Amino acid sequence: MDNKVLYVESSKHTYPIIVEPESLSSLYSKIEEHSDSKASRFFIITDDTVAPLYLDIAVSSFPIKDKVDTYVIPTGEASKSLSMYEKVMTAALENKLDRKSLIIALGGGVVGDLAGFIAATYMRGIPFVQVPTTLLAHDSSVGGKVGINHPLGKNMIGAFHPPSLVIYDPKALMSLPEKEWRSGFAEVIKHGFIADESFLTWLQDKIVSFQNISMDVLTELLIRSIKVKVAVVEQDEEEKGIRAYLNFGHTLGHAIEGEAGYGQLTHGEAVAIGMEFAVRFSEKYYGHQLEADKYFNYMKDLGYSLDIPSDMDINQLIHRIKLDKKSHSSKIHFVLLQKIGSPKLVEVNENLLKAELTGKGGV
Amino acid sequence: MDNKVLYVESSKHTYPIIVEPESLSSLYSKIEEHSDSKASRFFIITDDTVAPLYLDIAVSSFPIKDKVDTYVIPTGEASKSLSMYEKVMTAALENKLDRKSLIIALGGGVVGDLAGFIAATYMRGIPFVQVPTTLLAHDSSVGGKVGINHPLGKNMIGAFHPPSLVIYDPKALMSLPEKEWRSGFAEVIKHGFIADESFLTWLQDKIVSFQNISMDVLTELLIRSIKVKVAVVEQDEEEKGIRAYLNFGHTLGHAIEGEAGYGQLTHGEAVAIGMEFAVRFSEKYYGHQLEADKYFNYMKDLGYSLDIPSDMDINQLIHRIKLDKKSHSSKIHFVLLQKIGSPKLVEVNENLLKAELTGKGGV
Ligand SMILES: NC(=O)c1ccc[n+]([C@@H]2O[C@H](COP(=O)([O-])OP(=O)(O)OC[C@H]3O[C@@H](n4cnc5c(N)ncnc54)[C@H](O)[C@@H]3O)[C@@H](O)[C@H]2O)c1
Ligand SMILES: NC(=O)c1ccc[n+]([C@@H]2O[C@H](COP(=O)([O-])OP(=O)(O)OC[C@H]3O[C@@H](n4cnc5c(N)ncnc54)[C@H](O)[C@@H]3O)[C@@H](O)[C@H]2O)c1
Repeated sequence: MDNKVLYVESSKHTYPIIVEPESLSSLYSKIEEHSDSKASRFFIITDDTVAPLYLDIAVSSFPIKDKVDTYVIPTGEASKSLSMYEKVMTAALENKLDRKSLIIALGGGVVGDLAGFIAATYMRGIPFVQVPTTLLAHDSSVGGKVGINHPLGKNMIGAFHPPSLVIYDPKALMSLPEKEWRSGFAEVIKHGFIADESFLTWLQDKIVSFQNISMDVLTELLIRSIKVKVAVVEQDEEEKGIRAYLNFGHTLGHAIEGEAGYGQLTHGEAVAIGMEFAVRFSEKYYGHQLEADKYFNYMKDLGYSLDIPSDMDINQLIHRIKLDKKSHSSKIHFVLLQKIGSPKLVEVNENLLKAELTGKGGV
Repeated sequence: MDNKVLYVESSKHTYPIIVEPESLSSLYSKIEEHSDSKASRFFIITDDTVAPLYLDIAVSSFPIKDKVDTYVIPTGEASKSLSMYEKVMTAALENKLDRKSLIIALGGGVVGDLAGFIAATYMRGIPFVQVPTTLLAHDSSVGGKVGINHPLGKNMIGAFHPPSLVIYDPKALMSLPEKEWRSGFAEVIKHGFIADESFLTWLQDKIVSFQNISMDVLTELLIRSIKVKVAVVEQDEEEKGIRAYLNFGHTLGHAIEGEAGYGQLTHGEAVAIGMEFAVRFSEKYYGHQLEADKYFNYMKDLGYSLDIPSDMDINQLIHRIKLDKKSHSSKIHFVLLQKIGSPKLVEVNENLLKAELTGKGGV
């Protein structure tokens, strides 16, 4: 593949996503080429897992080290909090960032979401560059959603603030634990299910385990998966319609993730279970088979468990599904597949859902 | 005046500003007419000075009281804090506001800025309606700036999030203490200085004290003053150029306000001193008289003191002027007047400024 640069048109500006091995070590020159190397200061935010692996490489790329400040947050979802937000804001002010400064998010979705929200609200908004280091973060690098959690709900505080540039070094994924590969790969598969069956067969062909993936394959995988999300988001940035398709597998997935206790199952592991269920439910709903077993067998081979954990209470899951929605209307919506690549947002009956979840759904 | 509705074109949407006596008591029907009365919930944020005066009137206008929640913050600038932000966010979540809910800011600039920032970041942004109850808030109702303070600086955390509607009831200003009239009126006069001398002469003619202003005069005053700000902001929402003119009187004003200790001098009282200085400095800079004495005499009649408080250290003021800027470049910029109505942003020499501040500036 030659085309390693994708462009995302957000309502605010168009920005490039560069997927390129070794790009991390030329971070500064990429910024110079595609963004604002004239920034008054650079503020790199990362976590304490990523810092020892990649922070030096990133900082080394800058010619004037005096202009670079760094902030290392504790690894994990708990850092997406108002108290961490306040700490990072304070550091940004102490480091005398101004409106012409640039924030750089070096890490996974947690770093990206927090650092992006800092950028969105520092002096009413300054630009930021996203440097994703997880597979899952290919998802968060498109769409402009940034934010933090509140004890009463995930991602409840936030903004739309697209990055001005995304620099994705697939080599950085090499240090990712298997569990994190699996978490991110579920979103890759999701993009196949909702938009492009040929992508699923390509994945089956190219990725037989999370070890020894070639840089070429990984680069292509990232680009193809990102393209699906770009296409959806560009058509519906404001989440009025088809952007909902990205929730395929997520309605039940979120409920399972929450019910297990966040951190027990990764996001992707829970979404994988949600996708299998959504396909099964779709088959009932539309009355025809989707021939998806081959993909689910493939996922099992990659280590996914696709069953709802047996200790989970179905009523609790349904309760969570109803709570989870950011709209408090009492209807339950599910993304179903008419066929692979053709999603629909469907309002489903609670009893039908319950029957299907308990395995008692008729045809 | 017939035209009591102004429209502001922001980059996000166009919104109406309605200036109309008694509009507070028809708050809901105004929302119905101009905004989203179908909102899932209404969340009115106000302060504990305004609440006993106007909260009941506002709530009474809603046909379904169940859909209305209220939150009362302590009066004063200290409420523009991250900890108050967190409290109001928590209340919004507890009240089950969703993406279709509407926030209503009932109060002065403090309430407007805080409530607007809540709206900007609640579930990545929901609409809000501004119901200004101070004269100064006619300024904050245009421009879309919302935010809170950080111990290291005022308004350092925030966003651009224009309201979807502004409902201004001039009658509510009747309970405003004289000090707050004077604070807001300085911005009114500023709008005359930077854009429209005929407005200054009109003010001189119509407003001889802050008592007994007729509703007609007050309505016209608000509309004319708001129009000036609208014209500037529409041309330069992003603060790249002429929006700086709105800082006329503010460079020194902010420094004086800060040096006095926030709350000692009102914003407008400090800005008034800053304007007088900026005019005097302009006359030196451009080498001709601006014939502004009549306006400054008028201001003195209204109770403004236009001298830099004698106990203030000029070096400290200059230090603050240099710190205050959101850009940390070391240059000092001042808005000067070539003539009344013709502002220019000028880079000034620190020594020149100092000489003028100490009253030793030659011609
Ligand atoms: N903004 C969006 O649109 C969007 C989309 C999806 C997910 N998210 C958010 O993203 C978060 C999850 O993302 P995530 O899975 O990347 O989480 P994460 O940032 O916590 O990363 C997962 C783990 O991998 C570690 N890690 C990161 N890069 C590494 C590397 N190269 N080598 C070794 N370890 C590495 C991290 O330290 C962490 O322990 C959630 O908070 C979710 O809400 C946001
Ligand atoms: N966002 C912007 O563009 C913008 C522009 C200018 C100022 N501001 C902000 O606005 C704030 C100052 O605004 P303000 O002067 O309105 O402050 P404020 O909201 O504190 O109001 C001033 C005082 O008047 C009281 N009050 C309000 N309405 C009243 C009424 N009708 N009757 C009696 N008392 C009443 C308040 O309780 C308060 O004590 C500052 O925080 C400043 O940063 C923002």
